[in-house]
Amino acid sequence: MTEYPRFGAGLWHFASYLDRYATDGYGPARTTLEAIQLAGSVGELSVVDLNYPFTPGVSLEEVKDALKASNLTAIGITPEIYLRKHSRGAFTNPDPAVRASALDLMHEAAGVVRELGADYVKIWPGQDGWDYPFQVNHKQLWALAVDGMRELAGAHPDLKFAIEYKPREPRVKMTWDSAARTLLGIEQIGLDNVGVLLDFGHSLYGGESPADAAQLIIDHGRLYGMDVNDNLRGWDDDLVVGSVHLIEILEFFHVLRQNNWDGVWQLDQFPFREDPVDAVKTSLRTLKALHRALDRLDVPALLAAQDRQDAMASQRIVQDALLSVGTSD
Amino acid sequence: MTEYPRFGAGLWHFASYLDRYATDGYGPARTTLEAIQLAGSVGELSVVDLNYPFTPGVSLEEVKDALKASNLTAIGITPEIYLRKHSRGAFTNPDPAVRASALDLMHEAAGVVRELGADYVKIWPGQDGWDYPFQVNHKQLWALAVDGMRELAGAHPDLKFAIEYKPREPRVKMTWDSAARTLLGIEQIGLDNVGVLLDFGHSLYGGESPADAAQLIIDHGRLYGMDVNDNLRGWDDDLVVGSVHLIEILEFFHVLRQNNWDGVWQLDQFPFREDPVDAVKTSLRTLKALHRALDRLDVPALLAAQDRQDAMASQRIVQDALLSVGTSD
Amino acid sequence: MTEYPRFGAGLWHFASYLDRYATDGYGPARTTLEAIQLAGSVGELSVVDLNYPFTPGVSLEEVKDALKASNLTAIGITPEIYLRKHSRGAFTNPDPAVRASALDLMHEAAGVVRELGADYVKIWPGQDGWDYPFQVNHKQLWALAVDGMRELAGAHPDLKFAIEYKPREPRVKMTWDSAARTLLGIEQIGLDNVGVLLDFGHSLYGGESPADAAQLIIDHGRLYGMDVNDNLRGWDDDLVVGSVHLIEILEFFHVLRQNNWDGVWQLDQFPFREDPVDAVKTSLRTLKALHRALDRLDVPALLAAQDRQDAMASQRIVQDALLSVGTSD
Amino acid sequence: MTEYPRFGAGLWHFASYLDRYATDGYGPARTTLEAIQLAGSVGELSVVDLNYPFTPGVSLEEVKDALKASNLTAIGITPEIYLRKHSRGAFTNPDPAVRASALDLMHEAAGVVRELGADYVKIWPGQDGWDYPFQVNHKQLWALAVDGMRELAGAHPDLKFAIEYKPREPRVKMTWDSAARTLLGIEQIGLDNVGVLLDFGHSLYGGESPADAAQLIIDHGRLYGMDVNDNLRGWDDDLVVGSVHLIEILEFFHVLRQNNWDGVWQLDQFPFREDPVDAVKTSLRTLKALHRALDRLDVPALLAAQDRQDAMASQRIVQDALLSVGTSD
Repeated sequence: MTEYPRFGAGLWHFASYLDRYATDGYGPARTTLEAIQLAGSVGELSVVDLNYPFTPGVSLEEVKDALKASNLTAIGITPEIYLRKHSRGAFTNPDPAVRASALDLMHEAAGVVRELGADYVKIWPGQDGWDYPFQVNHKQLWALAVDGMRELAGAHPDLKFAIEYKPREPRVKMTWDSAARTLLGIEQIGLDNVGVLLDFGHSLYGGESPADAAQLIIDHGRLYGMDVNDNLRGWDDDLVVGSVHLIEILEFFHVLRQNNWDGVWQLDQFPFREDPVDAVKTSLRTLKALHRALDRLDVPALLAAQDRQDAMASQRIVQDALLSVGTSD
Repeated sequence: MTEYPRFGAGLWHFASYLDRYATDGYGPARTTLEAIQLAGSVGELSVVDLNYPFTPGVSLEEVKDALKASNLTAIGITPEIYLRKHSRGAFTNPDPAVRASALDLMHEAAGVVRELGADYVKIWPGQDGWDYPFQVNHKQLWALAVDGMRELAGAHPDLKFAIEYKPREPRVKMTWDSAARTLLGIEQIGLDNVGVLLDFGHSLYGGESPADAAQLIIDHGRLYGMDVNDNLRGWDDDLVVGSVHLIEILEFFHVLRQNNWDGVWQLDQFPFREDPVDAVKTSLRTLKALHRALDRLDVPALLAAQDRQDAMASQRIVQDALLSVGTSD
Repeated sequence: MTEYPRFGAGLWHFASYLDRYATDGYGPARTTLEAIQLAGSVGELSVVDLNYPFTPGVSLEEVKDALKASNLTAIGITPEIYLRKHSRGAFTNPDPAVRASALDLMHEAAGVVRELGADYVKIWPGQDGWDYPFQVNHKQLWALAVDGMRELAGAHPDLKFAIEYKPREPRVKMTWDSAARTLLGIEQIGLDNVGVLLDFGHSLYGGESPADAAQLIIDHGRLYGMDVNDNLRGWDDDLVVGSVHLIEILEFFHVLRQNNWDGVWQLDQFPFREDPVDAVKTSLRTLKALHRALDRLDVPALLAAQDRQDAMASQRIVQDALLSVGTSD
Repeated sequence: MTEYPRFGAGLWHFASYLDRYATDGYGPARTTLEAIQLAGSVGELSVVDLNYPFTPGVSLEEVKDALKASNLTAIGITPEIYLRKHSRGAFTNPDPAVRASALDLMHEAAGVVRELGADYVKIWPGQDGWDYPFQVNHKQLWALAVDGMRELAGAHPDLKFAIEYKPREPRVKMTWDSAARTLLGIEQIGLDNVGVLLDFGHSLYGGESPADAAQLIIDHGRLYGMDVNDNLRGWDDDLVVGSVHLIEILEFFHVLRQNNWDGVWQLDQFPFREDPVDAVKTSLRTLKALHRALDRLDVPALLAAQDRQDAMASQRIVQDALLSVGTSD
């Protein structure tokens, strides 16, 4: 059996949530330090991705200490460019002063990446895009998105910037909405230190095959990170991984392995009504089962079936690796 | 020209919003009284639907006075059975004590309906349903939903209870999800004072034709109220009315008129990034334009085309009523 | 281990297909007799559902003989009320003469059900509905659908009529579109011999939980039959069962077992580009694996988890039954 | 008032259709010559896009004569690489001999483009892609798609090749599925004579804003052609233009005008149950109304509103141009 990959999670997995209806939150708020402590209590996580700024009053030193005490390191820092101040856009905000303020926050986050020795600044411009037909000048909007990202990444040639694309939410339509569009923008940016954070769920409900999206991004040399979860293909439900799409998540991991992509298997889930530690433990149990299924997968037979595009044969091979229940009659 | 209908809005239209990302809100919070004052400032609204409880510290008397001062009356009261306490369900919560607490809140809301002389208690059980396959026993869940509604409405035979169905959100799947399912449940409930609040957007993104849903509910004698908005058919975007589906919103109003349904034209919109008064005024401008289009509609010709199911003819008739730009060559 | 259920398939599984692009068909046409012979060659099918009319020139006697020779019986007859003649509607056609012709065909099919001793006439009114906003008078259309079905079933009190609902295709919107709408219509019809054929895929892409839909229909005493397949939740792809939604198909079968529903497990798949016998064999292999998983499922523990609506616990229980790969660490 | 653009249609608009249910077709088949004659009978079409091969027995000379007699010219030729022979793929077929046969057909079509003086060979590889998870090796598949297109276009440097992307159908997932993916592939191809045919409906149900997609393709200098229609955002319904999305089709044309794109306004519609000439005439009536609305549109005010991303203001401006019914209170 091959060794398990390193596991990680967005630190927000251990926060509590609110939404437009449960405005008082699904549970009591947790500070950055409490969330780190909870993440550590799982016992099987190696890394976390941290939102920035930290909870007011929490210092970078305290975060460093808390991570160390919990045997965790930072894989990425996610600047919160989607709060009220930037809710009409970060890179694409119509107001130049607000765009500048968003960039300031991202420059700060870059500093934190250096301080913590993290792998990348994760850029998720959730408020960049539009809500209504005729609201924006599309040429102008895309230029703002691309030029802003170039300015940001160009200022920190020593760091990596990972764009996490998403089709929509909170904007009705987001600017960086798909793997292909993001790669196209990265080509326009023309820098070596801009890549992609591929979220399985975003890809799935955006109408992509996440396995195919992963291959495309790898072929462009831009897969800086990935995280997983699940949904019903209509929205970013952020359900626990494997709860719906067992076959397609296995295909996704299979493609990563075929390409010798050996990064962290991260979780980006929103367990609104579940205990977050229970949710992570359940997820890791599933991820390990999937990893063992990959070990059992008859890859030569699968590749041969794929050469013929023989969907029935490949399905039988996959079930033999995944299912317990003796499909082998 | 026929007279305009009365217009109304959910009072939350004048609140500010937050969501799972912009957790500090898209703008500063507003109290119930401030929201009423804003609603009154529009100058063309006759009624509002009020969330209950009111902002802490605001009394029923103050609300009455504020409504009067703003020339508004209450059309409905919406108990907030979707906050943290009931975030794992109101009627369908697994814990009997929490179900009882939700019912208590709804009984209170019924008292407020009496006090304000409103038309109905609006029941929107946004947290009733499930998120994951295998999470619930479907037989049990539906029984809880139906029995709870019967208990509630049965306790207040002098009042009307309007169920607002919705396919999903905040639950991944909601219990009262469609017009037909709601009517089926109402038949099981077996009471005369339970009906439907039809939300145009919920119907649209649930895969219904809102015009057809309205007809079905009217034919069952259960259309207690309706509200309008718009979306991209994939989610409850709560955009301003007519911004996307001009033809289908006109068909919806046409069906109401054909059935002599003369209730209030209400707005249920979430202008996250817009000024709420500007959004309401823009919406009323559209609603009045649609009303005038109905006056211009050649109904006998339309009915004749519909008898033949002649989609091209009916479309030309509708465009002649709606479009300015001389389609009549 | 419990005994396997009887397996069946729509006979069209063994036909070849065409669509609006591959107008010359994905393979050579097969006669009714050839399709029966192919179905028999699988060796594990007990029943088939037959389209009617049979291929021109094929007699009822020949069909009887062919079924017998292949060790098959007819479970249902599906009158083809969706060909050119009825392509603008069967029950809801604007032309009374065409409606009458559709009824004639269904009466004939009822006779064939008697002759073959099948369980039901399956009614799939694929062309009933509409394509455009404003095309139809919704009140009139629904009355045609309900009254026509009542007239048909009322004429054959000795037979059962199973309505197969579907959200859309070939119509942009179909009249009998969901479980709840169909049950509501059946109540309006007011006869004991009208029920539902639940197609897993139709339910799934219509936004239902198929498990929940099954429970609802069973609670109304109307589940006459079911068939399975898979899709990506956006369209009736008719993929082979279990190829995408392994968890939800297992939940569906679990609900049937909990209700002691012991009918045939039927396949309704369209293997456009696959060998049909290979596709059926692969599907039966999956169905048997799912059946064995049900045997392994810890039902008391699952019911207890569902009483708490504990999604994480129920997921672990389900994975323990389904997955091979030792999730039990 | 500005002059109308030239109008055109896919010749298949005048064919009759079949689908997987109405296998005997929605009407009698029409030959290439009959379809040309019907297209000419509309009286307002300037160009058609012709499927190739023509109906068996029809010669190129006859087509030339028929076009001339009907005052039509060919804008494009669409080789039918999606019939039975290539139903498991054209460029991406697993069998090299079938790939070669598809290329042969496309080379022939290139010859016809030369003979008729058409603008481009339209490449719509509807059968290229996959249906099932794990069916294909994504790296291999994309390479086949890109390399094949390069080989084709490279052989005809004097001609233009327009790829019409589409998310899915007839394949569950198509290879050239979006504007961005297609542009990315075109960059990989590295030739000057490969561009995009943008279908409004494909863009819409693929989750794009067609206006934004048009801008992106124009900014890459690759918009070779476009066609319009409508749908419900879930499938390629090919309804008549403007029947659902009046606002978004106007935005699409507005973006074209802003960019001085002055190509043909083509129709790609499938009027299954309508008279094709009636459907075209209704569509042209709508297109002309939209064109006049563009003339009335207050573009400076709109651009100013878009600079502020002011969705309410831009909506009022658009309604003033489009609606007849005096929104200007």
